[in-house]
Amino acid sequence: MDQGHEVHAIYVDLGQPCEDREAIMQKARDIGAASARLIDAREELCRDFAFPVLAWQAKYEAIYLLGTSIARPLISKACLQVAREVGADIYAHGATGKGNDQCRFQLAAEALDANVKVLAPWRIEEFRNAFPGRTEMIQYCEQKNIPVKASKDKPYSSDENCLHISYEAGDLESLTVNGLDLVDFGMGVSPQEAPDQIENVSIGFESGVPVSVNGKSLSPLAVVTTLNEIGGRNGIGRIDIVENRFVGMKSRGVYEAPGMTILYDAHRAIEQMTMDRDLMHLRDRLAPEVAEMVYYGFWYTPKLDALFAFNRQAQQNVTGDVTLQLYKGNIFVDSRTSPLSLYDEAVATMEGGGDYNQTDAEGFLRLQGLPSRVQANITPRKY
Amino acid sequence: MDQGHEVHAIYVDLGQPCEDREAIMQKARDIGAASARLIDAREELCRDFAFPVLAWQAKYEAIYLLGTSIARPLISKACLQVAREVGADIYAHGATGKGNDQCRFQLAAEALDANVKVLAPWRIEEFRNAFPGRTEMIQYCEQKNIPVKASKDKPYSSDENCLHISYEAGDLESLTVNGLDLVDFGMGVSPQEAPDQIENVSIGFESGVPVSVNGKSLSPLAVVTTLNEIGGRNGIGRIDIVENRFVGMKSRGVYEAPGMTILYDAHRAIEQMTMDRDLMHLRDRLAPEVAEMVYYGFWYTPKLDALFAFNRQAQQNVTGDVTLQLYKGNIFVDSRTSPLSLYDEAVATMEGGGDYNQTDAEGFLRLQGLPSRVQANITPRKY
Amino acid sequence: MDQGHEVHAIYVDLGQPCEDREAIMQKARDIGAASARLIDAREELCRDFAFPVLAWQAKYEAIYLLGTSIARPLISKACLQVAREVGADIYAHGATGKGNDQCRFQLAAEALDANVKVLAPWRIEEFRNAFPGRTEMIQYCEQKNIPVKASKDKPYSSDENCLHISYEAGDLESLTVNGLDLVDFGMGVSPQEAPDQIENVSIGFESGVPVSVNGKSLSPLAVVTTLNEIGGRNGIGRIDIVENRFVGMKSRGVYEAPGMTILYDAHRAIEQMTMDRDLMHLRDRLAPEVAEMVYYGFWYTPKLDALFAFNRQAQQNVTGDVTLQLYKGNIFVDSRTSPLSLYDEAVATMEGGGDYNQTDAEGFLRLQGLPSRVQANITPRKY
Amino acid sequence: MDQGHEVHAIYVDLGQPCEDREAIMQKARDIGAASARLIDAREELCRDFAFPVLAWQAKYEAIYLLGTSIARPLISKACLQVAREVGADIYAHGATGKGNDQCRFQLAAEALDANVKVLAPWRIEEFRNAFPGRTEMIQYCEQKNIPVKASKDKPYSSDENCLHISYEAGDLESLTVNGLDLVDFGMGVSPQEAPDQIENVSIGFESGVPVSVNGKSLSPLAVVTTLNEIGGRNGIGRIDIVENRFVGMKSRGVYEAPGMTILYDAHRAIEQMTMDRDLMHLRDRLAPEVAEMVYYGFWYTPKLDALFAFNRQAQQNVTGDVTLQLYKGNIFVDSRTSPLSLYDEAVATMEGGGDYNQTDAEGFLRLQGLPSRVQANITPRKY
Repeated sequence: MDQGHEVHAIYVDLGQPCEDREAIMQKARDIGAASARLIDAREELCRDFAFPVLAWQAKYEAIYLLGTSIARPLISKACLQVAREVGADIYAHGATGKGNDQCRFQLAAEALDANVKVLAPWRIEEFRNAFPGRTEMIQYCEQKNIPVKASKDKPYSSDENCLHISYEAGDLESLTVNGLDLVDFGMGVSPQEAPDQIENVSIGFESGVPVSVNGKSLSPLAVVTTLNEIGGRNGIGRIDIVENRFVGMKSRGVYEAPGMTILYDAHRAIEQMTMDRDLMHLRDRLAPEVAEMVYYGFWYTPKLDALFAFNRQAQQNVTGDVTLQLYKGNIFVDSRTSPLSLYDEAVATMEGGGDYNQTDAEGFLRLQGLPSRVQANITPRKY
Repeated sequence: MDQGHEVHAIYVDLGQPCEDREAIMQKARDIGAASARLIDAREELCRDFAFPVLAWQAKYEAIYLLGTSIARPLISKACLQVAREVGADIYAHGATGKGNDQCRFQLAAEALDANVKVLAPWRIEEFRNAFPGRTEMIQYCEQKNIPVKASKDKPYSSDENCLHISYEAGDLESLTVNGLDLVDFGMGVSPQEAPDQIENVSIGFESGVPVSVNGKSLSPLAVVTTLNEIGGRNGIGRIDIVENRFVGMKSRGVYEAPGMTILYDAHRAIEQMTMDRDLMHLRDRLAPEVAEMVYYGFWYTPKLDALFAFNRQAQQNVTGDVTLQLYKGNIFVDSRTSPLSLYDEAVATMEGGGDYNQTDAEGFLRLQGLPSRVQANITPRKY
Repeated sequence: MDQGHEVHAIYVDLGQPCEDREAIMQKARDIGAASARLIDAREELCRDFAFPVLAWQAKYEAIYLLGTSIARPLISKACLQVAREVGADIYAHGATGKGNDQCRFQLAAEALDANVKVLAPWRIEEFRNAFPGRTEMIQYCEQKNIPVKASKDKPYSSDENCLHISYEAGDLESLTVNGLDLVDFGMGVSPQEAPDQIENVSIGFESGVPVSVNGKSLSPLAVVTTLNEIGGRNGIGRIDIVENRFVGMKSRGVYEAPGMTILYDAHRAIEQMTMDRDLMHLRDRLAPEVAEMVYYGFWYTPKLDALFAFNRQAQQNVTGDVTLQLYKGNIFVDSRTSPLSLYDEAVATMEGGGDYNQTDAEGFLRLQGLPSRVQANITPRKY
Repeated sequence: MDQGHEVHAIYVDLGQPCEDREAIMQKARDIGAASARLIDAREELCRDFAFPVLAWQAKYEAIYLLGTSIARPLISKACLQVAREVGADIYAHGATGKGNDQCRFQLAAEALDANVKVLAPWRIEEFRNAFPGRTEMIQYCEQKNIPVKASKDKPYSSDENCLHISYEAGDLESLTVNGLDLVDFGMGVSPQEAPDQIENVSIGFESGVPVSVNGKSLSPLAVVTTLNEIGGRNGIGRIDIVENRFVGMKSRGVYEAPGMTILYDAHRAIEQMTMDRDLMHLRDRLAPEVAEMVYYGFWYTPKLDALFAFNRQAQQNVTGDVTLQLYKGNIFVDSRTSPLSLYDEAVATMEGGGDYNQTDAEGFLRLQGLPSRVQANITPRKY
C-alpha cells in the first residue's frame, strides 16, 4: 500500500488453533485493505491435502508430518481464486526469502496461473534494508499501529493450522537450547503434564481415509480436531528436528501435531493388516520422495498427480478399525480388526495345521539361495 | 541323534539377557552331544552386524529394528566355523518351516559354503507328524528329560539377544489381544512403571558408529548393554506389529529393544546436523530395501555388500554428541553438537545478515517453476 | 491322460507368427482331448497386456522387451475361464521346472483362483526320470504319434506370439556361440539382409497408447502386426542377452521383436516432448522394477495394480505423432509433433528473447550450490 | 578485459577431436591474456570421470551418454588449480544462462572452493543487451579480430571432447527438422555410409573398467580413442533427443559418441555374465538418478561420492572379455568369456542333470504365491 497497490486481504481459515480471526480481519480493514475476506478451507485442507499425504505415510526426513507444507498450496489456490474474482494480478505474501514457504506459495501459484506475479517483499533488497530483521519490522508495525503477534518477548516464531503448530527461529536457532522446554505449546500438554493413565481411542478407516473416531462418523476436519483434543491432553506428537530446507540450508524446527500423529500410527496399524507386503515395501521406498515433494512445494505437478493415483489404488483395501492406547506421549496398539484383513491366523500360527505346507519352504529356500551358492563357488567369502 | 547323527552342539553367545548359559551347555552334554561349546560373538554382533544396520536407519516395515534378523547370519557363520573344525557336514537348526529364521540361517550358510547340507526337522513331514505342534514337542522333551524353557503355561514364544527380545505365537496370534499387556518383558519396565522423571543420556558417534555413553568410551557391546539398562528402566522401545514374513504370510510380533531404540534416535539426531540433504534423502529411500534384505536373510550378498559400501562413505561425517531425555517411553532431544556440523546459524537465521542472499531465491524459484508455468499454459489445471 | 485325467486342450491364440493352428488343434483331438478349443486373445494381449508395459518403457535387464513374460498371465486367465466352464479343477502346463514360465503361469493362476491345482509334470521327479531331457520326450511323442515341432535337428527351442519370438536352450547355451548367427529367425531379416535404403514410418499415440501407423487408425493388434512387418523387413529388433531367471540362475536368450522395438522408440520420442521431467525421471527409476515384476510373473498383484494406476495418470498427455526412419536395424527419429508438446522453442533457444530470464540462473545456482559451499568450508575437498 | 580484469586463459585438453589447439592458444595470446596454458586432462577425463559413469551404465533420460556433462567438473577443477597458482579470484566462463553447462561449471567450482566468484557474462543483463544473440557476438568478435568457429553459416553449435560431440541450437531447435540429416558429424560416418560388412572388436574389462581392445592393453584414453575410430567408421553411436535441462526447459540435442556407445554395450555384456541379479536390478534403478546428478552438475557431492562407493564394490567381479560385431550402426554380441562368470551351463540347461532340482520349484512357487492366494480369497479378482 505504501507503494500504491490496492490490496485485497485474505485470511484462509485452516483451523488455526490460536488465532483471533475477528482481530485479524479487523486489522486488515483498519490498515485500509480494499477488501478483506475469510475463506473457510478447513474441510478441504483435511480431506484433499492432509489425508492423501497421511495415506502415503509421508514424513519429511523421517519424522516431520508436513503440517505447514501441506497447507501452503491450498492458501495459494484460495488466494488465486479471490484474485480472479477481484481482478488482482499480483499475489503478495510475507514469507522470507530464506524459508520454504515462499517456495510452496509460489510454485503452487505458478502451476495454477503461469502469468501470476508473485510479490515477496522480503526478497527485495531495499525492503530488507529497511527491515534488516523481525525486530525492525515489529517497530514499523508499532509505528503504523498494526498489532502483531510476535513480540520481542516471544523468542521464536510460529505457524499454525488445525494440523499442527510449528515453531522456529529466535532462540530455537541454537542447537544446544532444549526446544521442547523453550516452546510454549498451543495444542496440548507435555508428556510430563499428561494424566498418569491410559486413554483409549478408536479410529475407523475406509480405503485409507479416516472416517470415524470412537465409533462416531466424523467429517475430515472433525476427525482431526477431535484427535487433536484427545492427543493434546495426553502429550502426543511433539518433535524437535534439524531439517534441510528446499533453499539449501539446515534449519531447526519444533512441531506439535497431536491428532495427525495419532492418525499416522492408526493408519499404519490398519495397513499392517490389509496391505500387500510388496506393495507396502514399494510405498515405503517412495514415501520419502512424496514427503520431499510436498515439503519443497511441488504440489500441483504431474509427478505428484501420478503418485497420488498410485496411492489411491494402493489404499483401496486399507479399511478397518484400530483401538490405540494413549499414555503420556506414547501410542500403543490395543487391538485392530478389518473385514479385509489379510492376516490369517491359520496360516501364521506356529502350531500345526493350516493351509501352509512347511515342506514347501525347502524348495523355496533352495531356489532363493541358488545365486549365493553359485557365487560361493566362483568367488568364495572367507569365514 | 535318534537317527544316528553325531551331534556337535553350539551356543552362540549373543548376550541373551535371560538365558542360563551353564544350564544350556549342561543340557547339551546331558543329551549326549559329541561336543558342546559356547562361542562368544557379542562384540561382533554389535560391531559388525547391528551397527551397520543402525547406520542405515533400517527398520523393517517402518518400525521393527531387526534384532533377530541381524543375529541369524552371525549364528550361521559361527556354526560353520565350528563345523569346519569338527568336520561336520550338516548344519541342523530347530527353526520352523513357517518362519523367517530358517531363511536367514540357510541363506547365510549357503552363501558361506555352497555345499553345506541344512537339516531343518520342522520342514520334514514325518517329523511334523510326530510333533504336530509345540505341545507334542514339549511332551517329547519331558520324556527324554530335556528341560525346555517354553512351558505350556507361557502363552507365546520368544527369541532374545543383547539387541532385543521378540515375542510371538500362542496367544499373540489373536490381533484383538493387547500384546504389550500380555507379554512379560525381559529387558525393561513399561512406560507406566517407569519413574516420573526425566533421565538424561549422552551418546557420542564417530562416522556413524556409537562410541561413547555419558562421556565414557565404550566397546560396541558395552554401548548396547549400557543403553539397554538406561532405556529399560525408562520404558523405552516396545512395539507391537503385524508384519510380513519372507515366506509370505502376515504374522504378529511384539518386540522390546531399549538400547537400540535410543541409538536409532541418537544417530538420526547427529545425522540431521552433519549429513548432506540429498544424500540423506536417497539413504532414506534405500533404507526400507536394506531392512527388507536383512529381514529376509540376504546378509552375505553382493547387493548388501554394495549397500554397506555406500553407507560407509555416507556416514563418514556423522560425528558428534547428542544428549537425549528419556521419560516414560519417550525420547526427546536435549542438545547436540558436532565438529562437522553443517548447520550454520548465520545462514539459517530468519534475522538479517549471513552469507545467504534472499534475492537469489527469486531466480531459484523462477527456474524451479518453469516446467509448471509451461504446463499451466498447455494443460491448465482448474481452480 | 496316461494317469486317467480327462484333458481339455486350449490353444490361446496370441498371434503366434509361425504356428499352424489347425495342425495344433488336430493334434489335441487326435490325442483324445475331451475338448479342444482355440481362444482368440490377440487384441487383448496387445491392448491390456503389452501396451501398458510399453507405456512403462519397461525392459528386463535394460534390453529385453518381455514378449513372453507379458503373454503368460493372459494364457492362465484364458485357461481358468475355460476351466470354470468345463468344470476342470487342475491347470496343467508343460513348462519346465527350471524356467520362468512356470512361475508366470502359476502365480497368475493362483491370483485368480486361490484353489486351483497346478500340475507341472516337469516338476515331478518320476516324470523327469522317464524323460531326463527333451530328447527322451521327443522319442515318446514319436511313439505316440504326437507330432512335435522341436526336432533333434533344431538346436534350440522357441516361444512365439505376435509380440516377439524367443530362442533359448540347446546350442545357445554356450556363450561363445554367436546367437544371432545360429538362430533361424521367424519375424524378419537381419540388418545385413535388409534393403540398403531408409523406410519411413509414422506412429500416432494418444495418452501413451499407439493408435495409428502411417496415418491410419488401427486396432492394437493391427498396430503391432503392421509394425512387425515393417520392422521385420528392415532388420529391426534382435537382441542376444544373458539374463537372470526368477528361479535364480543365469540363462541365455535370443529375441526378435520388430514391431515392439519400434513402438518403444516411438513412445519414448513422444514422451520426450510431452512428459514432465521429474515425472519421467521417477518413471525411469521405477521401470526396472515393473519389468522385474512382469518378468517374474507378478502380474495380478496389488503392487502392479498401483503401478499401472500411476502410469495411466503419467501417460495422460503423451499424445502426438512421430516419424521414424528405419535402416538396416537402426531406428532414427525423423520428426515429431504433439498438440500437448511442452517443448517451447522460444524458451529453449540459445538466441535472445523468450520468456526466460537468464539472470534468474544466478539465484538458481547460488541456492543449488549452498550445501556444497557449506560443506567446502567444513570438510574441504582436495584439488 | 574490457572491464579491466587481468585474464588468464585456460584450454583444458579433453581430446577434442576437431579443435586446433595451437590456433586456440594463439587466439588467447593475441587477445592479450595475462597467461594462456593448455592443461592435458585427457587420461583423467576417461579414467576418473567417464569410466565411473560408464560403470554405472548411466544414461540421461535413457539414451544420452553424458559426454559433455562428465567433462564440465573436470574443467572447473583444472581452472581452479590454475587460479590458485596464478592468484586469480574469479572464474569466468562463456556458458549461457539458459543451458546446463553453467550449472556444471559453477556447482563443481563452488564445491571445490566455497569462495570462488563465478563470472558468467551471459547472465548479466547489460551484457545480454549488448549481445542479444550469438549473431551479435559473432559481429563483436569480427570487430575485435577474434576468430570464432561458429559462423553464421553453421546452423547449430557444438561441444566436443574425446567422449563425444554434441550439437544443438540453431536449426536444430525445430523438432520437425531431421537432426541426423542436418548435422555435419565430426567423429564418424553414418550407418548408410559405413561399409557393408561386419567388423569385430574385442574389449577386456577388469572390475568394470575397460582395459584392452582387440587383445592389446591400453590406457583409458587409448581405449576410448581406439574405439572412436573403430565405431566411427561403422556408423555407431548417433542419437537425436529432446531432453530436459536442469534449468527447467526442454531442449533438443544431437550427439555422437562412437567409442562410448560400444563401451556401454560391451560393459553390459560382461555384467550380464558376472553380476548378481538383485545387485544389478538395484543398480539399474539407481542409474537414472546417477545420470541425473551428473547431467545437472552435482559431481562433487557426498551423494555421488556414496553412489560411486556403491558401484566400486558392485563392479568388483565385472571382469571378462567380449567380442562385439559392428555393422552399419548396429552392435551385436559375438561371444563373451569371464573367469568370474556366474553363468553355469549345467544349471541353466533345459536338458536333465545339473545341481538344480526342479522339484524345488514347487515349494518356491507355493510360497511366492501365498500372498496372492490369501488375497484371492479376501478380495477376489474377476476373470
